[in-house]
Amino acid sequence: MSNVAIVGTGHTKFGVRTDVNLQELTWEAVKQALEEANLEQKDIEMFVVGNAGGWSSEPLSAIAIGEYCNLAPKGTMRVEAACATGSAAIRIAYQAIKSGEAKVALVIGVEQMNQSPHPVAVEMMGRAGNYFWEFENFGLTFPGYYALYATRRMAKYGMKEEDLGSVAVKNHYYGSYNPYATFQKQIKMEDYLKSRVVAYPLKLYDACPITDGAAALILASEEVARKITDSPVWIVSQGFASGTINLSKREEFLTIDASRVATEEAYKRAKIDFSDAWRYFDVADVHDCFTIAEIMAYEDLGFAKRGEGHLMARNGETYIGGKIPVNVDGGLKAKGHPIGATGVSMAVSITRQLLYRAHKGTQADIRNGMGITHNVGGTGHYAYITIYSTRKPNA
Amino acid sequence: MSNVAIVGTGHTKFGVRTDVNLQELTWEAVKQALEEANLEQKDIEMFVVGNAGGWSSEPLSAIAIGEYCNLAPKGTMRVEAACATGSAAIRIAYQAIKSGEAKVALVIGVEQMNQSPHPVAVEMMGRAGNYFWEFENFGLTFPGYYALYATRRMAKYGMKEEDLGSVAVKNHYYGSYNPYATFQKQIKMEDYLKSRVVAYPLKLYDACPITDGAAALILASEEVARKITDSPVWIVSQGFASGTINLSKREEFLTIDASRVATEEAYKRAKIDFSDAWRYFDVADVHDCFTIAEIMAYEDLGFAKRGEGHLMARNGETYIGGKIPVNVDGGLKAKGHPIGATGVSMAVSITRQLLYRAHKGTQADIRNGMGITHNVGGTGHYAYITIYSTRKPNA
Repeated sequence: MSNVAIVGTGHTKFGVRTDVNLQELTWEAVKQALEEANLEQKDIEMFVVGNAGGWSSEPLSAIAIGEYCNLAPKGTMRVEAACATGSAAIRIAYQAIKSGEAKVALVIGVEQMNQSPHPVAVEMMGRAGNYFWEFENFGLTFPGYYALYATRRMAKYGMKEEDLGSVAVKNHYYGSYNPYATFQKQIKMEDYLKSRVVAYPLKLYDACPITDGAAALILASEEVARKITDSPVWIVSQGFASGTINLSKREEFLTIDASRVATEEAYKRAKIDFSDAWRYFDVADVHDCFTIAEIMAYEDLGFAKRGEGHLMARNGETYIGGKIPVNVDGGLKAKGHPIGATGVSMAVSITRQLLYRAHKGTQADIRNGMGITHNVGGTGHYAYITIYSTRKPNA
Repeated sequence: MSNVAIVGTGHTKFGVRTDVNLQELTWEAVKQALEEANLEQKDIEMFVVGNAGGWSSEPLSAIAIGEYCNLAPKGTMRVEAACATGSAAIRIAYQAIKSGEAKVALVIGVEQMNQSPHPVAVEMMGRAGNYFWEFENFGLTFPGYYALYATRRMAKYGMKEEDLGSVAVKNHYYGSYNPYATFQKQIKMEDYLKSRVVAYPLKLYDACPITDGAAALILASEEVARKITDSPVWIVSQGFASGTINLSKREEFLTIDASRVATEEAYKRAKIDFSDAWRYFDVADVHDCFTIAEIMAYEDLGFAKRGEGHLMARNGETYIGGKIPVNVDGGLKAKGHPIGATGVSMAVSITRQLLYRAHKGTQADIRNGMGITHNVGGTGHYAYITIYSTRKPNA
């Protein structure tokens, strides 16, 4: 089993990117990653495209992209895991290298949601819940789903609107320093509290935006990585899990079960103790499609005790300099959430953090050389947890 | 690197399967595979769903299926590689076992194309070519694409309509013995020649039908396979490649380049000599979405010389007892082509052939214990070649 290193990263500006088509948008990220790794297309043995699709015009996105980026005839596929699509793409390339099927693999995450009108994109995302019972019969879309979690936690744990707001304020703060972020303006708690209610208690400022964007990673075997870079970032482990599509089959609306299961798998493989997990990591990117999701992630990753995630937000413990910096690239909330690109974007952020290459104003202190990403699809339909380190893991 | 064995197979009746929903259809195949392997859901460490989607109502097909088949919280993803989707799903599970990330993995291929009206399904498949230039501007759909190849080969190699018809007659002949096939009636050459022209020279009997169906495989590491079965079928190697989405970027319309590239990769890994490749295999399943595709596959797999594939069809060399039996399960042509299920169905057919468990009237002589599948997506946008053996490959 080969160790797997990240040897190149690429990231486009996120936001409304109808200035380019899907292939052109992808190339911006792929070009960066190739240059960073000092590789050419001929060196890539396989590529995988994370793209949920549906709102853009190319149904065979992997192929359209492969042609434009001059990657054919390399083998490829498209993968979808709802909002965790990008992390699923990473998994495929990770397995390809680890199994010896490839020595250099390119991971692409891309989505161009603004090719369709907003109501179409919102409907498509809504249908990505349990289509038949929840969307068709009850009209439930994603703000409604996450509002269920938020209200339940308010009732049980005494969480306040201001606790949710603390996440929004933090993520907009860091987004203002990230030139790739969709939103680059800071907000104040009073802006948050005044913002329009979307699905109580969730307000406009609790939600991430419809976004276009692309991100890319080049993964290599240890043998290749040693030749082409002095600063590989290793993938230590990955855990993934799934949930029911039907929310009525879940026991409680207090957390994302799949995210906890996936975390335990990733920690077990990396020999990380859940009870004080935050001590291992210098920085984390978690799935904050809504602010409530970030609060639940704190708990599912073992950074806070069950029921205390909102206190961590309230006390500002996830700013740089705090207990553990979380989403200091702006998160989905301010950076944006181009579905297929999101998981790959998280990996790019953490890799650059560990190499001290984060944007000014967003660089965390790197002491242990370890970071983690937490990427959820749907309302816990999918969960992918990935652990990164500047130190080589045991093979 | 662990060897990877197939330890369970499942296959539903293909055809119009609107008697069940997507999840129920899948369960028919998964149940069979679990029973065959004598395993339960708790033994499965991850599952992957090959489903191209678009025509059925569940956008998160992997999750809806995972819930219904009681597979959650196991990790999962959905994969798409156009008509090679099923083979892409196999690749992911194959890599998962080979890399040591899992010891038991379930591969699901499923499609329910009849949930949408036929014109919708046909349009969706047509859009899976090069959407912008070819479909939108020229209205080119798949019969038209493959007709380009057929007319070019008629002009260059003197191929006749009857040569195409030979493939149709053979595949309908074997389909008549396969209780899982959509079409179970034999046709005569005169029926073929009289059938309605769809896109010259392709007629109705040159084309595979819109189909619903599911197939499943359970893959296991060598360690696990040894414990649970006396008759594993090993995956020896897999090659995959891609082509341009834009047909005008291809040099000639005589063959599917990606299929040749993928074959060479698979043969190289399995140490098979291309020039007499047919001698290695007892049986093959190839991608006959149209009869012309099967003829090109003979050449791309090294069974016939370039330009002579149609002679192989004309001379009946791919019947059981001939040079090499091809598509003796009826092929896509008679068995049907439920996009995501097709590649998995091919693997099920070859596994059962190698174990002497094929349907009566379709069993080939097994001498070398080796078989091969050839699964193409689009018009060579994707190609996946997989080699199977009853003898354990070298790790």
